[in-house]
Amino acid sequence: MNEFELIGQLIPGLAANRTVVVGAGDDCAVIDLGSPGEYLLFKTDAIVEGIHFKANTEPERIGHKALGRCLSDVAAMGGKPTNALITLALPATFSPEKVSRIYAGLNALAKQFQVAVVGGETVLNPERILISVSLLGVISQGKEILRSGARVGDAILVSGELGGSRLGRHLDFMPRVQQGQWLAANFAVHAMIDLSDGLAGDIRHILTASGFGAELEAAAIPISPAAKVEPTSALVKKSPLKAALTDGEDFELLFTLESAQVATLQEKWLARFPEVPVSCIGIITRDQGVRLRQNDTVSPLEDYGYSHFS
Amino acid sequence: MNEFELIGQLIPGLAANRTVVVGAGDDCAVIDLGSPGEYLLFKTDAIVEGIHFKANTEPERIGHKALGRCLSDVAAMGGKPTNALITLALPATFSPEKVSRIYAGLNALAKQFQVAVVGGETVLNPERILISVSLLGVISQGKEILRSGARVGDAILVSGELGGSRLGRHLDFMPRVQQGQWLAANFAVHAMIDLSDGLAGDIRHILTASGFGAELEAAAIPISPAAKVEPTSALVKKSPLKAALTDGEDFELLFTLESAQVATLQEKWLARFPEVPVSCIGIITRDQGVRLRQNDTVSPLEDYGYSHFS
Repeated sequence: MNEFELIGQLIPGLAANRTVVVGAGDDCAVIDLGSPGEYLLFKTDAIVEGIHFKANTEPERIGHKALGRCLSDVAAMGGKPTNALITLALPATFSPEKVSRIYAGLNALAKQFQVAVVGGETVLNPERILISVSLLGVISQGKEILRSGARVGDAILVSGELGGSRLGRHLDFMPRVQQGQWLAANFAVHAMIDLSDGLAGDIRHILTASGFGAELEAAAIPISPAAKVEPTSALVKKSPLKAALTDGEDFELLFTLESAQVATLQEKWLARFPEVPVSCIGIITRDQGVRLRQNDTVSPLEDYGYSHFS
Repeated sequence: MNEFELIGQLIPGLAANRTVVVGAGDDCAVIDLGSPGEYLLFKTDAIVEGIHFKANTEPERIGHKALGRCLSDVAAMGGKPTNALITLALPATFSPEKVSRIYAGLNALAKQFQVAVVGGETVLNPERILISVSLLGVISQGKEILRSGARVGDAILVSGELGGSRLGRHLDFMPRVQQGQWLAANFAVHAMIDLSDGLAGDIRHILTASGFGAELEAAAIPISPAAKVEPTSALVKKSPLKAALTDGEDFELLFTLESAQVATLQEKWLARFPEVPVSCIGIITRDQGVRLRQNDTVSPLEDYGYSHFS
């Protein structure tokens, strides 16, 4: 059983109440606690030594990544992040200097997005460091962008370039917080998710939630220069396209909107965010599943994203 | 360096913004996100296998404890808990049945207090289970009860009975959510904290935050029957009083208010919560430190609470 199956099994039994607008299963929970015209966004995300970072990773980059992942989830709802709590689990032999440097990386990113770090806790985890970040955000009611809103004929777009994140970008990525808020404010984006496990896997979350399929155009998928680097012997050899589809930890935004709006969106995006590419990579189809068009042939996309427990 | 020193070193550098009413250093953060007349309470707490529970602890009790600890922190502000996110870090060999049972214990407690579990995540922690709970709550503006409000001459009160929690109560305790809300609504409680590390340690958090000292009356400290059980060879031998002062994980409320109100409070509390004792155990003094009056002699209280990294 992988974690998606496990979570799917647990969700139906979760305790609920009237504050829940969107519960488990999207990038963030959406909650109504009575603020006029506004919903809260609520998210946690954890990273673990030896899995998401190495024992010798620069501590500032560990802190950056820990918060950046949660910020990316709030971005994928179109929201504004506001407050974070940090849970730091660490061995008894921890180095205070390392902890300070983790917090320095985390605080620097928080300040960049005007997020307040309002506390947290330290706890003993004897074998390795684990950092869990809990993040609050806000969004205007009705502006929240879910995974479930994609419609047949929608264009599928993605920010940035994909693949090869393990060469370094997974520790330094800039969460697309501004882009997410700008999209929510200016366009009727139907569905959005952030790419954490890889395009091939994450697009399926939009499709499952929306009840449709997709056809992707291989030549349109933006491949990062890092995905084109010849893999060293330590890494699985993948084609650059396969790397872009499956490497994961891109933390880019994947979203859908009416095809007729693509040209306008690309023009305005380019004017607003000249340093971040945006690519139209396919369309939402009534046919289920994901298909890849490559050299005029269309075939089912077999690849999936990263799974922690498979 | 223990965790309190570490946290004290980190707090001054935390990123801030205008939403922060109370940041790091109290039972919960207090946040103003624009809801008229209301503040948000925000808290995370983690428990770790081998430290807070055993590998063979009944899974339902693990879930109960994980959420109960956070609920106790919201109770200690006088607030109403509303929404929780669960981070479950577990070995790759996890048992889906065990995870389901952890969630069952957690959900049962959540339902009891009308808290919605709005999601969470699973992540790999190869050696042991770690559960981090993130909790949101609400409180009327101005009704939040901080650690810093104790005044000289205040009576010091505590709910329940203390000590011996390790014999079982640490897994089954009922967080004092109703009592905390009732206190905030009906009395001018000056300062409050929940007892997680033991009375001898936790009272110092109120005193440090408020700038005063305290004198405790040994005979008035409510000692749990479990604290009077003769310790087995596996446990450190403590007197029942010392156990009540230092065992930790009581999850009772410790609070201060004007001495003149004690009789009224005790009478009304007894009528409202006949099953939960409340005891007046001392007074706030201008003299710093904690002193214990026992058999007509007063001496400095040397004991401290549990420290995870000392």
